[in-house]
Amino acid sequence: MQLHKLAKSQRIEAEAWSALEKSIIYYQGRPIGTVAAYDNSTEALNYDQVFVRDFVSSALLFLIKGQTEIVRNFLEETLKLQPKEYQLDAYQPARGLMPASFKVVSHHGEEYLEADFGEHAIARVTPVDSCLWWLILLRAYVVATKDYCFAYHPEFQNGIRLIMELCLRNRFDMYPTLLVPDGACMIDRRMGIYGHPLEIQSLFYAALRAARELLICEGNQSIIAAIDNRLPLLCAHIRQHYWIDLNRLNAIYRFKGEEYGKTAVNLFNIYADSLPYYELDKWLPTNGGFLAGNVGPSQMDTRFFSLGNLMAIISELATEEQSTRIMNLIEERWEHLVGDMPMKICFPALEGEEYRIVTGCDPKNIPWSYHNGGSWPVLLWMLAAAALKTKKTYLAQKAIELAEERLHADSWPEYYDGKKGRLIGKQARANQTWTIAGFLLAKEIIANPAYLPLVSFEELPQELVSRACEFEINSYDTTMF
Amino acid sequence: MQLHKLAKSQRIEAEAWSALEKSIIYYQGRPIGTVAAYDNSTEALNYDQVFVRDFVSSALLFLIKGQTEIVRNFLEETLKLQPKEYQLDAYQPARGLMPASFKVVSHHGEEYLEADFGEHAIARVTPVDSCLWWLILLRAYVVATKDYCFAYHPEFQNGIRLIMELCLRNRFDMYPTLLVPDGACMIDRRMGIYGHPLEIQSLFYAALRAARELLICEGNQSIIAAIDNRLPLLCAHIRQHYWIDLNRLNAIYRFKGEEYGKTAVNLFNIYADSLPYYELDKWLPTNGGFLAGNVGPSQMDTRFFSLGNLMAIISELATEEQSTRIMNLIEERWEHLVGDMPMKICFPALEGEEYRIVTGCDPKNIPWSYHNGGSWPVLLWMLAAAALKTKKTYLAQKAIELAEERLHADSWPEYYDGKKGRLIGKQARANQTWTIAGFLLAKEIIANPAYLPLVSFEELPQELVSRACEFEINSYDTTMF
Repeated sequence: MQLHKLAKSQRIEAEAWSALEKSIIYYQGRPIGTVAAYDNSTEALNYDQVFVRDFVSSALLFLIKGQTEIVRNFLEETLKLQPKEYQLDAYQPARGLMPASFKVVSHHGEEYLEADFGEHAIARVTPVDSCLWWLILLRAYVVATKDYCFAYHPEFQNGIRLIMELCLRNRFDMYPTLLVPDGACMIDRRMGIYGHPLEIQSLFYAALRAARELLICEGNQSIIAAIDNRLPLLCAHIRQHYWIDLNRLNAIYRFKGEEYGKTAVNLFNIYADSLPYYELDKWLPTNGGFLAGNVGPSQMDTRFFSLGNLMAIISELATEEQSTRIMNLIEERWEHLVGDMPMKICFPALEGEEYRIVTGCDPKNIPWSYHNGGSWPVLLWMLAAAALKTKKTYLAQKAIELAEERLHADSWPEYYDGKKGRLIGKQARANQTWTIAGFLLAKEIIANPAYLPLVSFEELPQELVSRACEFEINSYDTTMF
Repeated sequence: MQLHKLAKSQRIEAEAWSALEKSIIYYQGRPIGTVAAYDNSTEALNYDQVFVRDFVSSALLFLIKGQTEIVRNFLEETLKLQPKEYQLDAYQPARGLMPASFKVVSHHGEEYLEADFGEHAIARVTPVDSCLWWLILLRAYVVATKDYCFAYHPEFQNGIRLIMELCLRNRFDMYPTLLVPDGACMIDRRMGIYGHPLEIQSLFYAALRAARELLICEGNQSIIAAIDNRLPLLCAHIRQHYWIDLNRLNAIYRFKGEEYGKTAVNLFNIYADSLPYYELDKWLPTNGGFLAGNVGPSQMDTRFFSLGNLMAIISELATEEQSTRIMNLIEERWEHLVGDMPMKICFPALEGEEYRIVTGCDPKNIPWSYHNGGSWPVLLWMLAAAALKTKKTYLAQKAIELAEERLHADSWPEYYDGKKGRLIGKQARANQTWTIAGFLLAKEIIANPAYLPLVSFEELPQELVSRACEFEINSYDTTMF
C-alpha cells in the first residue's frame, strides 16, 4: 500500500516535471522563462506571457535541478528591459522598475521582447513586486551557482542600484515601509492593500537583504549606507507595528486616539472600533500571532495574508518567536488557512458591504474566490520553506500530501475557491505553471533542506539592528528585539 | 432697513479684519504668517502653528490689501524650510516637500522656526498639498506685486524646480495624475482619498501652471518640457475620466469589465455595481455635472468634493462647459451642497459600514461632521472665485449673505456639522483664521473681480493641448476638447 502510494506520487511528480518543461519558452533559440499557463483549452488572453513574479517558482526549481541557464538568460534579458533613464514623462515606467511580464514577438523573422509594465494590465496596476522578486531571484542564482561575478558585472550592479534608488528614495513616504498603490503585487486587483501592505513589505525587506549581499562597496557607498539605515528600521517597524497576538490586541484595544506629537503611542491613530476584536479574541490561539495585512493612518487591516507572513519568516523579517507563533497559528487554524488546498491567499474573505466597498464589486474577487480568500497552490513552496525554517516540517508534509492528488487530478489549476478550497477556481486555467512549480519546489525543499538558503536569510547582523536606535522614532518598544 | 443691514455688514467686516490682524505672528520682528486659530477658550494643541494651507486664504487677502510684506516673508522663510538634499533615509522628508506647518520657537532669546512635515501630525500623514499651495501662492504674490524678479531669484527657481521634480518624477505612477497616500491635503484624515484624489489633482494642475509661468527657461529646459508634457495629459485625463454627468453615467453604467490591452475602454476596470447609480440618476440635474472625487483601479468615488471641483473651475482644469455644469449642480442642489452654511467639504457623507470601513471608525469624522460631510466656511472664497469665473456671481452673493451673520454670531468656527450645516462643529475652535479670511476674501473677490487673476488661470494654450496627442493613450475621446 505504502509502496503503491509512493509509486503514484512519483508518477505525479514526473508528470508535473514534464508539464513544466512544456511551459518553457525560447527567445533567439535560448530558454528564457516559462509561460503563465500551458492550457490549450481556453483562449490565450495574457497567458502567453512570462510573468516575472510567476517565473520565480519555476526559476528556483531550475536552479535546484542545475538548469541554471534559463535563469541566467531570464535575469539578463529582463535586466535589459529595465528603464535606465530618469523619467519625468507621464506614462513612462520609472527608472529601476521591472516589468510585470514580457512576451516574445516576431517581426520580419526577427525576435524581440515586448515588456509590459502594467500599461496593458487590467485596470493598469503597477507591478512593484517585480523588481523585488527580481532581486531575490538574482541572489538565489548567485547562491546556487556561487557565481558572484555574475552579479558583480557592472550592468547588474547598475540594475540593482536603480531598484534600490527607486525604492529607497523618499517621496511622500512617512515610514520605513514602501508606499505603493493598490494591486502592486500578486494580488493585482483592488483589495485594500494600497499604502503599506505586508505583501510588499516582506518582499521589500528580502530585496534589501539581497541587494546588500550583492552590491559591491566601491562606488555604492551612499546606497549601501541607505540600505543599512533602512533594514533595521523597516524590521523594527514591522515587528512592532504589524504584529498581532493577544497581548498586542489587548494594547490596541485600549489605545487612545487623537494623539499629537512625538510622544504618541498610537502612532497611526487606530480606533479599536474599526477592528473585529471580538472575532480575533476568539480566533487567535494563545500561542499564535501574525503580521497584520496593512497598517496606515487610522488603518489596521487584521486579515491574514499568507505570502507576507511566510516571506517574513523566510527572510527573518519576523523575529524567531514571531515566526514560531505564525506557524503555530497556521497549525491551530489549519481548517481556515489551509483547509483542503494549501493555502489561502488571505483570510478571512471580504464579505457584504466590505467586499463591495473595498474591491469595487469585483466579480472575480467575490468572497472566498480568487484573491479574496481563494486558495493558491503556488504558496505551497513558501509554506514549506517557512515550515522548514521553524522546524515544523510535518506541517509542510501534511500540506503537500493534501495537494498532491487533487492538483494532479484537477490538471494543476491556478487557484481554488470556497471556504475549504474544494472548488476549482471559477476562472482558473489548467496547467498553471506556478501551481506546478510551487508543488514541485515544496517537495524539493522538504526533501533537501540544503536548498532553503536559496531564498532564506539569517537574522540581521546585530550591528545593524543596534544602529536602528540612531534613527528611529522613540516610540519603538525596544524590549521586543 | 437696507442701510441698517449695510452698516451691520460693515461692522462685521471690520471685526473680522481686526480678528485677522490678531492672528498674525511675528518672527524676528517681522510678520510671517497667521496662526490657525486665535482662541483663548481652549487648549492650544497644534493651533499655535502656521499651517501652510491655512495661511493661503489670509495671504491672498493681505495681497489684495497691499500688505505684501507678510506674504513675502512667509514665502522666503518657508522656502528655507524646504529640504534641498536628495534623501534616501527613512523618516526624512523628501527633497522638495514643503512643511504642513511651522512655529516660532525661542531658545536662549534666539528665535527659530520649527517645521513639521507631518511627523508630529495625528496619524503622521504627508502634507502633499503644502508644496502645491506654496507654488500657487508664490504666483499670486508675483501677480499682485508684479515683482517677477522675486520668483526669478535663484533660490526660488531652485525651490520651484525641486517641487516639480518631486511631483513629476515617476515612481509607481501609471497615470498623469499625482499618486498620494490618504490624508495628503486639507482632508488630512483617512477618508478614501488615497491614490489619485481630485482634491490633490486640482491643486497639482494649478501648481504646474504656476511653475510654468514662473520658471525661467535657462537651465530648466528639461523640467519645463516635462511640465509642458504633463499639463495637457493631466487636463485630458481629468476632463475625461473624472467627469460625471448623465451621459457619462450612462456610459459607465454599461461598461464591460476585465478589458485587457491597449484598446480597453473601461481603463480603470470599474464595475457599475460599485456606483450608487440609482442615487446619482435622481440627484444629477440634467444640466449639471461634476468631477468625481477619486478614480483608480476598480474605483470611482462619486462623492462631490468641493475644493477639487471649485479649484478645477478656477484653474481651468475643467472645460468651460464642465465649469458651468459644476456651478449648475451647486445651484440646483443648493440645499445639499450649501444648505445653511457654505459649503460642504464633500457630499454625501459616508455612513454606516462605509463610514466604518473607509474612515476606520474615526470619531471626528462621523457622518455629516468635520471632513465627512461637514461645512467649511473657508471654501467660501473658492465658491466666490468659481462663481465669478462662470458668471454666476449671484450664487456667491447668496452664499456670503447666508454666512455673514452666522459666522459672526458664532465667533468664526472652523466648521459646521449636520446635513444643513446648522450645528457648530463638534470640536471646532472659535476665531479660526481661515474661516475669517475665507469670508473676507470672498467679499473682496466679488466686490472687485480684478482680484480673480490672483488665483485663476486662462485656458491652457492650444499648442500645449494639441501636443497631448503625441503622448496620450489612444482611448482619450478627443471630441471633448
